[in-house]
Amino acid sequence: MGGHGYESGRLNLPFVGIPTFAKSPYIADWSQIEADAAILGAPFDMGTQFRPGARFGPRAVRDASTLFSFGHAGAYDHEDDATYLGPEVRIVDLGDADIIHTDTEKSHANIESGVRAILQAGALPVVIGGDHSVNIPCIRAFDEVCASGGPIHVLQIDAHLDFVDERHGVRHGHGNPMRRAAERDYVTGLTQLGIRNVSSTAKEGYESARAMGSDILSVRQVRALGREGVLARIPTGARLYITIDIDGFCPSIAPGTGTPSHGGFLYYEVLEILQGVAFAHEIVGIDLVEVAPDYDPSGSTQILAAQLLLNFLGFVFHARAHRATKIRL
Amino acid sequence: MGGHGYESGRLNLPFVGIPTFAKSPYIADWSQIEADAAILGAPFDMGTQFRPGARFGPRAVRDASTLFSFGHAGAYDHEDDATYLGPEVRIVDLGDADIIHTDTEKSHANIESGVRAILQAGALPVVIGGDHSVNIPCIRAFDEVCASGGPIHVLQIDAHLDFVDERHGVRHGHGNPMRRAAERDYVTGLTQLGIRNVSSTAKEGYESARAMGSDILSVRQVRALGREGVLARIPTGARLYITIDIDGFCPSIAPGTGTPSHGGFLYYEVLEILQGVAFAHEIVGIDLVEVAPDYDPSGSTQILAAQLLLNFLGFVFHARAHRATKIRL
Amino acid sequence: MGGHGYESGRLNLPFVGIPTFAKSPYIADWSQIEADAAILGAPFDMGTQFRPGARFGPRAVRDASTLFSFGHAGAYDHEDDATYLGPEVRIVDLGDADIIHTDTEKSHANIESGVRAILQAGALPVVIGGDHSVNIPCIRAFDEVCASGGPIHVLQIDAHLDFVDERHGVRHGHGNPMRRAAERDYVTGLTQLGIRNVSSTAKEGYESARAMGSDILSVRQVRALGREGVLARIPTGARLYITIDIDGFCPSIAPGTGTPSHGGFLYYEVLEILQGVAFAHEIVGIDLVEVAPDYDPSGSTQILAAQLLLNFLGFVFHARAHRATKIRL
Amino acid sequence: MGGHGYESGRLNLPFVGIPTFAKSPYIADWSQIEADAAILGAPFDMGTQFRPGARFGPRAVRDASTLFSFGHAGAYDHEDDATYLGPEVRIVDLGDADIIHTDTEKSHANIESGVRAILQAGALPVVIGGDHSVNIPCIRAFDEVCASGGPIHVLQIDAHLDFVDERHGVRHGHGNPMRRAAERDYVTGLTQLGIRNVSSTAKEGYESARAMGSDILSVRQVRALGREGVLARIPTGARLYITIDIDGFCPSIAPGTGTPSHGGFLYYEVLEILQGVAFAHEIVGIDLVEVAPDYDPSGSTQILAAQLLLNFLGFVFHARAHRATKIRL
Amino acid sequence: MGGHGYESGRLNLPFVGIPTFAKSPYIADWSQIEADAAILGAPFDMGTQFRPGARFGPRAVRDASTLFSFGHAGAYDHEDDATYLGPEVRIVDLGDADIIHTDTEKSHANIESGVRAILQAGALPVVIGGDHSVNIPCIRAFDEVCASGGPIHVLQIDAHLDFVDERHGVRHGHGNPMRRAAERDYVTGLTQLGIRNVSSTAKEGYESARAMGSDILSVRQVRALGREGVLARIPTGARLYITIDIDGFCPSIAPGTGTPSHGGFLYYEVLEILQGVAFAHEIVGIDLVEVAPDYDPSGSTQILAAQLLLNFLGFVFHARAHRATKIRL
Amino acid sequence: MGGHGYESGRLNLPFVGIPTFAKSPYIADWSQIEADAAILGAPFDMGTQFRPGARFGPRAVRDASTLFSFGHAGAYDHEDDATYLGPEVRIVDLGDADIIHTDTEKSHANIESGVRAILQAGALPVVIGGDHSVNIPCIRAFDEVCASGGPIHVLQIDAHLDFVDERHGVRHGHGNPMRRAAERDYVTGLTQLGIRNVSSTAKEGYESARAMGSDILSVRQVRALGREGVLARIPTGARLYITIDIDGFCPSIAPGTGTPSHGGFLYYEVLEILQGVAFAHEIVGIDLVEVAPDYDPSGSTQILAAQLLLNFLGFVFHARAHRATKIRL
Repeated sequence: MGGHGYESGRLNLPFVGIPTFAKSPYIADWSQIEADAAILGAPFDMGTQFRPGARFGPRAVRDASTLFSFGHAGAYDHEDDATYLGPEVRIVDLGDADIIHTDTEKSHANIESGVRAILQAGALPVVIGGDHSVNIPCIRAFDEVCASGGPIHVLQIDAHLDFVDERHGVRHGHGNPMRRAAERDYVTGLTQLGIRNVSSTAKEGYESARAMGSDILSVRQVRALGREGVLARIPTGARLYITIDIDGFCPSIAPGTGTPSHGGFLYYEVLEILQGVAFAHEIVGIDLVEVAPDYDPSGSTQILAAQLLLNFLGFVFHARAHRATKIRL
Repeated sequence: MGGHGYESGRLNLPFVGIPTFAKSPYIADWSQIEADAAILGAPFDMGTQFRPGARFGPRAVRDASTLFSFGHAGAYDHEDDATYLGPEVRIVDLGDADIIHTDTEKSHANIESGVRAILQAGALPVVIGGDHSVNIPCIRAFDEVCASGGPIHVLQIDAHLDFVDERHGVRHGHGNPMRRAAERDYVTGLTQLGIRNVSSTAKEGYESARAMGSDILSVRQVRALGREGVLARIPTGARLYITIDIDGFCPSIAPGTGTPSHGGFLYYEVLEILQGVAFAHEIVGIDLVEVAPDYDPSGSTQILAAQLLLNFLGFVFHARAHRATKIRL
Repeated sequence: MGGHGYESGRLNLPFVGIPTFAKSPYIADWSQIEADAAILGAPFDMGTQFRPGARFGPRAVRDASTLFSFGHAGAYDHEDDATYLGPEVRIVDLGDADIIHTDTEKSHANIESGVRAILQAGALPVVIGGDHSVNIPCIRAFDEVCASGGPIHVLQIDAHLDFVDERHGVRHGHGNPMRRAAERDYVTGLTQLGIRNVSSTAKEGYESARAMGSDILSVRQVRALGREGVLARIPTGARLYITIDIDGFCPSIAPGTGTPSHGGFLYYEVLEILQGVAFAHEIVGIDLVEVAPDYDPSGSTQILAAQLLLNFLGFVFHARAHRATKIRL
Repeated sequence: MGGHGYESGRLNLPFVGIPTFAKSPYIADWSQIEADAAILGAPFDMGTQFRPGARFGPRAVRDASTLFSFGHAGAYDHEDDATYLGPEVRIVDLGDADIIHTDTEKSHANIESGVRAILQAGALPVVIGGDHSVNIPCIRAFDEVCASGGPIHVLQIDAHLDFVDERHGVRHGHGNPMRRAAERDYVTGLTQLGIRNVSSTAKEGYESARAMGSDILSVRQVRALGREGVLARIPTGARLYITIDIDGFCPSIAPGTGTPSHGGFLYYEVLEILQGVAFAHEIVGIDLVEVAPDYDPSGSTQILAAQLLLNFLGFVFHARAHRATKIRL
Repeated sequence: MGGHGYESGRLNLPFVGIPTFAKSPYIADWSQIEADAAILGAPFDMGTQFRPGARFGPRAVRDASTLFSFGHAGAYDHEDDATYLGPEVRIVDLGDADIIHTDTEKSHANIESGVRAILQAGALPVVIGGDHSVNIPCIRAFDEVCASGGPIHVLQIDAHLDFVDERHGVRHGHGNPMRRAAERDYVTGLTQLGIRNVSSTAKEGYESARAMGSDILSVRQVRALGREGVLARIPTGARLYITIDIDGFCPSIAPGTGTPSHGGFLYYEVLEILQGVAFAHEIVGIDLVEVAPDYDPSGSTQILAAQLLLNFLGFVFHARAHRATKIRL
Repeated sequence: MGGHGYESGRLNLPFVGIPTFAKSPYIADWSQIEADAAILGAPFDMGTQFRPGARFGPRAVRDASTLFSFGHAGAYDHEDDATYLGPEVRIVDLGDADIIHTDTEKSHANIESGVRAILQAGALPVVIGGDHSVNIPCIRAFDEVCASGGPIHVLQIDAHLDFVDERHGVRHGHGNPMRRAAERDYVTGLTQLGIRNVSSTAKEGYESARAMGSDILSVRQVRALGREGVLARIPTGARLYITIDIDGFCPSIAPGTGTPSHGGFLYYEVLEILQGVAFAHEIVGIDLVEVAPDYDPSGSTQILAAQLLLNFLGFVFHARAHRATKIRL
């Protein structure tokens, strides 16, 4: 479903062809992953507390990703004077984890299996949700690689703290994942950016989060610190897992989500932080969640998600290739 | 939130006021229900297999119901030369059953409690879903009243048979409710109207349904039989529970639903059957499910649901009042 | 804005050009109307009782009318083997009556002035609403032509009777026009088709209407009578004013309106009645109201309005041209 | 409809329950208001000059407010380290003022009555429009409380000056309210923020406004002054009435309005000014107008309105409680 | 991307997985087609004369087709008591023909190549448009198979005749395909169903069509003839190519198209004709065109297209398997 | 269609009347243009590579322009204390260039003819697209006026470089216009602002552009330079042609376009640059392209386009009138 360039037979315009992520090859057999990065859809939204629909996030983000798949031999960025995601970077699309309606536990288990398969293949897992609860099985899947490779730090972009321990018996909804992550012994801490306004986490949640190693910054606090100030607060050398809730962004560019919150990040604010961590840290996993496309008829939200993921992946693999060299950020 | 007429202080146009169902009084204390019919929202949609969003069904149907609440002393129908739902019919709105995200069992239990409260108060339960799985706790709540008052027959309007026993462990999703109903010893049988096209029920499901007492008719079969022919197939004297999946209707008038299926019923086809059963049978319970308003920006789907429910309630209480008299249908 | 054919310089596809009605010439000076039919927009919607937005009806119907303006020398209909609206029929577009927000009386007066100007020019007035209250000034404008040319009968296509006399002081809202018309001494009576379901008119309104000369038929009653049966009930030889509320149609094809009501007419049911009256009666005026385009993102509603008006105008002028001849309907 | 917390029986997720404002109790009897703040809907939009639909503003803002009603004992804000709107703040919802279609005067009178009732009960009136003309009866209702309590100053957030005196006889449309306010002897002046671009007010309007005591600042001028600079221009000690036209905001976050104007305020720009005045001034009344939800299918506009109102109310009552203490803004 | 059943590892709900048509396997190498039917997308819409957007038809129909892909071993239809499209029917998805913007000729040539590849593989070509001009290369591709296997007859479902020869030099737009088909010596004639109302074809076009072998029937004429009457007019034994313009259907169920025309077919009217021809004729090719999904936010149009295609394919292969047996239609 | 003021007969609210651009007079005879600026629609979108629909750009921008046409004698801007576009500025609307579907060359030729007619009349051409390929015929039309009046410099606002020479034979799609412009000997160079992210132009395109005289700046680079810094890079005294691709703006305010790209300009960033060049340069032509209204149900995008064009035109003619005077920018 991809790989053709202008010189080969097809022009392959964005609206043409089966919409796998960035028109990358689809791999049905998860025991045969040979790639640098593997996309896994996690279309689960039973953990939502307001508007559902994130189950269509994977399809929407894949569709939108084709806009950025013009068939070049990589994507040239004139600001960085760099060509990202050239043919040397192998991206594959695994399709989606199997979801069992009414059954959170089984659905999460299937997501976990997918991430484990990617990690075992040595590829970077890139999970597209689904609601933020899909982060729970993603983090769970890291136990083995962390046992051998060392612990991880979680960098979260989000409007909400998502640090509820348990309420009415719920421990695996989209208000709980960061608490679940913090409980893992191979998670050394969290950097939580964009947190603002009233949410499902009460004061006790903030106190618990800080007690368990969280650094919590609002959008305004991030702006006051500046990109370098924020980057400096992430532990040096930490291996990073990045979890991006699209509602961390301003509803002006990400209205297609379940629980929008005004006052969020603009595009470059997040992109530049991601570019920073891509060059300064090893990125071990990524998830992007809460795109609910039916609330955004303009399609801007999924275009944001796809544009962000493709640029971030470009930074990650560019940095890996040039790790030894001093790089202009 | 209602009850005012033109002669009293307010004109009370449809777009004015808090949208309880038909602007009926809201009853927060479910131990204090004094009414002929009580509306209960069941905003649960974790049982869906395609598009979610039926959790917003109760709010959408309530909103739409205000269009038919002009503040008259009842609703005059010139075709029947009858005034329905005059001040002698007491309708109340109980709000919604509490929903616990990620937890089907607890959510269903809360719905069941609400229906039990209505039945204990001697009112007619009218449940607005939510997906079709909410029918499961509704039917469960009838065990006691059936123990004393006798069994019930279920009349279903639907595109899908919803008769899956179990698949991947799922027994309480929106493909299972009619099977669950048929298993109850106080359910004598089902009349399933509108069933068409491929769905989540395989051939075995149809065979099981028939074996367990179902009469299954497609839209075309209903049309071929005619209204009287269909009415004649419902067991005489049966006490009826009515479950209406909005996708039983044609997507032309009900696009706002999770799993639309072309070839469905038009408005009067269903209305006239409901008018028929209202006059020929005791109606013991009603649910209307699968209105997912965000898929219908025109609002037609919820207007259909509200128009249908209000007319049906009019027929039910008109018939109760005139049961002894011969009535022109 | 029109008049070009294939042989002249322009292909003039529907999406090209300024959207006057059917791309007809715009006449800014209402004292210089030389035409067989003149279109007047009446973008007034302060008379609505639920969803507003009919003020954008004129623009939407004009836009949609361009779909049927392929630049032919008339529109060939293969079913009738007739070419309608050839170059011999002169249609002009007068733009809109001036609307004064917050002021119903002045706005109505401006609409009335426009219709008077058309009538004085001897053209057929075709008014596009706006809500149904704009019918009030339209009918008022007929006093002089009726004084000389004789009275008129009103044929209404509508879901609602619109026969409220006065409520809370309101006499010129969209629930009042048919009562206002019936009060005119030059209106001999009304034929009201499509009336159904509960509406803003109570039982007394129906009784008053019948007492003042109305023949009221529901959609089902129209279907039972058949087209010929309905046509036979309209007084022979009556000069007809036609008022079409788009909500007379089924919401499946006309969701873009303020107060949709399920169970309405389908396209050919109305078209064939209009074709019938066009051949059997003199048509003296037309209004089409209650298109509220923002509730129908598909645009079907305004396409229906434009398709209906253009076909009806074709019938009217075809019949005028062949009045002496026996015509196949 | 509210008040439950996690420890009580219900989880009460945002999508569950009757949507009164913030799920506060509904008070049908306006002579029995016991509250700190009372919400009144004013669903009147006959004063609009472009897109109508603000009549659905009250319902939309109430719906959106449920997103911020997670059932906590107040809303914790980690940036302020404060818990706002705890159980000590009593908010009630009065439903809507009665609207009479076609009749601006009566509709405005009903709104005025509602605000008078709130003021007589000693509660803070919070009116949700409706178009900006609803500010006229709101201000009118303050004559008595100002007679006893002293005059007020009006702080307006808006794209448009709304200072037209009279045009074509219109004095109570949505282009007139600030002129009407300035005419009141108990209004000492206006601070008009966000005014930009061409609007319905001509040059003479600006001159009149300044002559009658207005301080007019554009978005860019507000930015140049900074929050403190703006706050300093509001008369020290003035009792403030706040009127927020949602079109004061950028269409990126508030597209759902009748007359959008690009170049508007972003979220925090307004929030921080409101936080400032809440701590420095007595707030005597609030209205938020011109939310026309049908133009924003994403729902962002009404979420903005609800988020802003709830935060502002939090600041107002927090400041009242701590008026004597020095507070970190 | 498909083939799993309930007993294998995955539940594979409709919203899960890469949306190839009916989740069938994607075949990138068109020289390796081993299938009974092959889906080819033809996302070309430069031939449209009103609303574009049919280029997203293939993706939309594929997405919608997943709703009917519940992972059963075939689709059971209780009305026919038949299981369609069991594992013995091999369907593959070839992705899309390459489209060259601004270049109609090259784009059409690429579509033609795809159809030729399918025909050479002995599979049934099923082309999803794109606008109706894509039928031109489809028919062109049949020259060789017709040279050996005999001529074909074209059965068209459409609102428009599409029989314009040339206008302003345009010969390959969406108003020309049936004329182009009729010119082919291996096309023996056309049956054109659903043709109605004014369109881009003038009277001369109808005359030419009839002269070149067309049988033209309007929707009302089809209804008057009945299904059997229509089927009887198709030449006995003719090998049929089916071209379905979605605007042949009523806008109530197919609003998502470029040039909607009211008065179209309902679902079963077309389905039953297709079922009839599937059993009575050899079906050699299918195209379904003019689905422009962005005009139908409800998704009904693409669901109609997918439901129709899947049912029709079921009939075709069921009939092939049972050709020798007398079948109940 | 315009020109009336408050003192004349009509209030002429924005929603009233035929939507020519700013309700300016429509001129059907292009040999009779007497105006300072002439609007030409170029509804061509066959050059698009992702979402089409820009063919409805001209109608949408004209509709939106009526919001800013309150009938004043010019538009007063309180920030500039200036009245723009008073009656001394004559704007006319020429309607649209004729578009020939499937034929890029002829369609472009018709656009070119329209621009030539405007230039011959001595008016400022203002072309509303359509996709960005319509810039190609616009620039072509300047050969004669440049031969006499001297060369031009092109100022582009855009997300994409649009500098592809040829690919698969395509030379006149929406990815090619700036290359085509640069090839003209009467184009001295380009200033390309807003260029960002991956697009259809590869690295070679950037190199070619710079070699052919382009100054390329991203959004962030423009912000870093500041308005004055950017203005200083445009050659002093250059006669400017301005081409504005609406996707140069942030999708938050311009989602209604074919290929949105996050990280774009906000309103004042572009407005202030345009105000700067209006005062410092002679503006010889303007096009605004890629508004695809059906992707923005809120209408914000076309409102942005109209607001920008009207303000820019105000600046241009204000500067022309006061060229000799020192002006506050």
